[in-house]
Amino acid sequence: MSEYRQDPISGRWIIINTDQPKEPKDFEKIKPLPPKTNCPFCAGHEALTPPEIIAIRADGTAPNTKGWSIRVIPNKFPALRVEGELDRAGEGIYDMMNGVGAHEVIIETPEHDKQLPDLPLRHIEEVLATYKNRILDLKNDSRFKYHLIFKNQGQTAGASLSHSHSQLIALPIVPKRVLEELTRAQGYYEFKERCVFCDMMLQELEERERIVLETPEFVCFAPFVSRFPFELWIMPKTHAADFAQISPAQTSDLARALSGALGKIQKSLGNPSYNFVVHTAPVSAHARDEYHWHIEMMPRLMRVAGFEWGSGFYINPTPPEIAARFLKSS
Amino acid sequence: MSEYRQDPISGRWIIINTDQPKEPKDFEKIKPLPPKTNCPFCAGHEALTPPEIIAIRADGTAPNTKGWSIRVIPNKFPALRVEGELDRAGEGIYDMMNGVGAHEVIIETPEHDKQLPDLPLRHIEEVLATYKNRILDLKNDSRFKYHLIFKNQGQTAGASLSHSHSQLIALPIVPKRVLEELTRAQGYYEFKERCVFCDMMLQELEERERIVLETPEFVCFAPFVSRFPFELWIMPKTHAADFAQISPAQTSDLARALSGALGKIQKSLGNPSYNFVVHTAPVSAHARDEYHWHIEMMPRLMRVAGFEWGSGFYINPTPPEIAARFLKSS
Repeated sequence: MSEYRQDPISGRWIIINTDQPKEPKDFEKIKPLPPKTNCPFCAGHEALTPPEIIAIRADGTAPNTKGWSIRVIPNKFPALRVEGELDRAGEGIYDMMNGVGAHEVIIETPEHDKQLPDLPLRHIEEVLATYKNRILDLKNDSRFKYHLIFKNQGQTAGASLSHSHSQLIALPIVPKRVLEELTRAQGYYEFKERCVFCDMMLQELEERERIVLETPEFVCFAPFVSRFPFELWIMPKTHAADFAQISPAQTSDLARALSGALGKIQKSLGNPSYNFVVHTAPVSAHARDEYHWHIEMMPRLMRVAGFEWGSGFYINPTPPEIAARFLKSS
Repeated sequence: MSEYRQDPISGRWIIINTDQPKEPKDFEKIKPLPPKTNCPFCAGHEALTPPEIIAIRADGTAPNTKGWSIRVIPNKFPALRVEGELDRAGEGIYDMMNGVGAHEVIIETPEHDKQLPDLPLRHIEEVLATYKNRILDLKNDSRFKYHLIFKNQGQTAGASLSHSHSQLIALPIVPKRVLEELTRAQGYYEFKERCVFCDMMLQELEERERIVLETPEFVCFAPFVSRFPFELWIMPKTHAADFAQISPAQTSDLARALSGALGKIQKSLGNPSYNFVVHTAPVSAHARDEYHWHIEMMPRLMRVAGFEWGSGFYINPTPPEIAARFLKSS
């Protein structure tokens, strides 16, 4: 079982893998991604993964066989495990608890060489609906206070397999970064009685200098305070704190916005590695007027270095106004 | 001039390079580090850098010529500039100010192929004394509220030159990460009337499970809440908030601890890229009972991925107890 530990100085939580600890030799070189021939996420290789949790599959096909279009499995090397209680405990000044959580993989397509923006809109829509459905299912487990959906595309972005997939982690604690957003958004709301995300979006829609694309329900822009070159956010125009309350019509429209934004990143930047993260409210704050779910997309073009680690500051060599201009015209 | 921008949602500050913005083509491939023949940090190549701020050099040698052992120069491509006023301003909901600051490079040796732990202890001591002296000098500029010393070693750690060097950035705002440490350390102090760092060190010295090395004045340990595999901290045994108040005897002892720790990282992990950062108190909190300066060292063995970006959580596959055992015996 892994272990959560909290730093008394920063308040930061980490997850330590105590089951299969990595030794120096395990880091000595970066291994190449496994080839198609033994990719566990390809159609026909279902036996190489843990049994599926759910799949969208053709009528009459059996679970854990071919015939699926989207497949959700538990992570084979999970950072966290579903079984057990948290058992919070102290060890001197340190706080710790058991590594309870869920860690699932959403395999977005049975085809090895298709990336997310290569898929038809209808298929991307189903991927997004799968995110929503998995969160709704995991909400039944009251131990989990936060559901984090993210995607690592490419080795520089931390992917260990090239076959297109996203991940879901359900956590018994609300992550520090989300708490920070929530606390500041509450402060703004108390002061202005308005959602800071809504205000930001209205300003972006008025200035239009950083808008990359717009659909009826979503706006995609390079944020004024971009940490990384060509960072993009997608935000729903209608205020909503909880991603999992997205309507079917919005899901279809989000597929269009996401496909468009990722396609522009691929085209402008020569298919870079990237991460995206769905920022949504914690379970306890699902109906909040002051939080607004959104997707943050970060192409991985630069190394994060000592200055960033030491300060929490970021140095970005590409003003978002210029990034938006390049992405918009691509 | 570059520009500071603050995110109203996270409170995060970033620095945007508006002078020489990088376009998509500038990121297309990672350029190899320049070879020795045209390394601007090598002895004899002084004309390739801006004029030196200060240098430790042999008697009778002229500034900006050979004969130095440590040389401090302004960064040729600075993230910030020394001239000018902050000119804080709003732009709708956003806050911004001019990119005022200092960005200096400490070239640690005239020899291209020597790394920091390869240098004699007396030389490392002078590098550390140079850090201190540059901070003391920059403290005369009352615009600067924080002085950050860090080192990026190796391309994976963000270094753009392989010649051994560190950097100093003086900032007109206290970085978010330092503020967080300070706020929580204050909370602990109010509750216990003790420094949380001192308590942490005492516990480590008692348990000894994560200690890697000890000198009369310093202790080096793998922190209980290590974000990264083989992360190490060095902490002075005597409480002190401000790195720049280090005594000559402590400086000499720190050279021993730093050289030992970096040597162990090099040896155990096959000379990996790494960052280190000196965490010290902001100018306004130099005499604080609740803050304790220290050095954080992070070998760069893994990619930071979507989960970490989205949550501020870290997943660490190597328990610090195991990391300490490997490093100690190397």
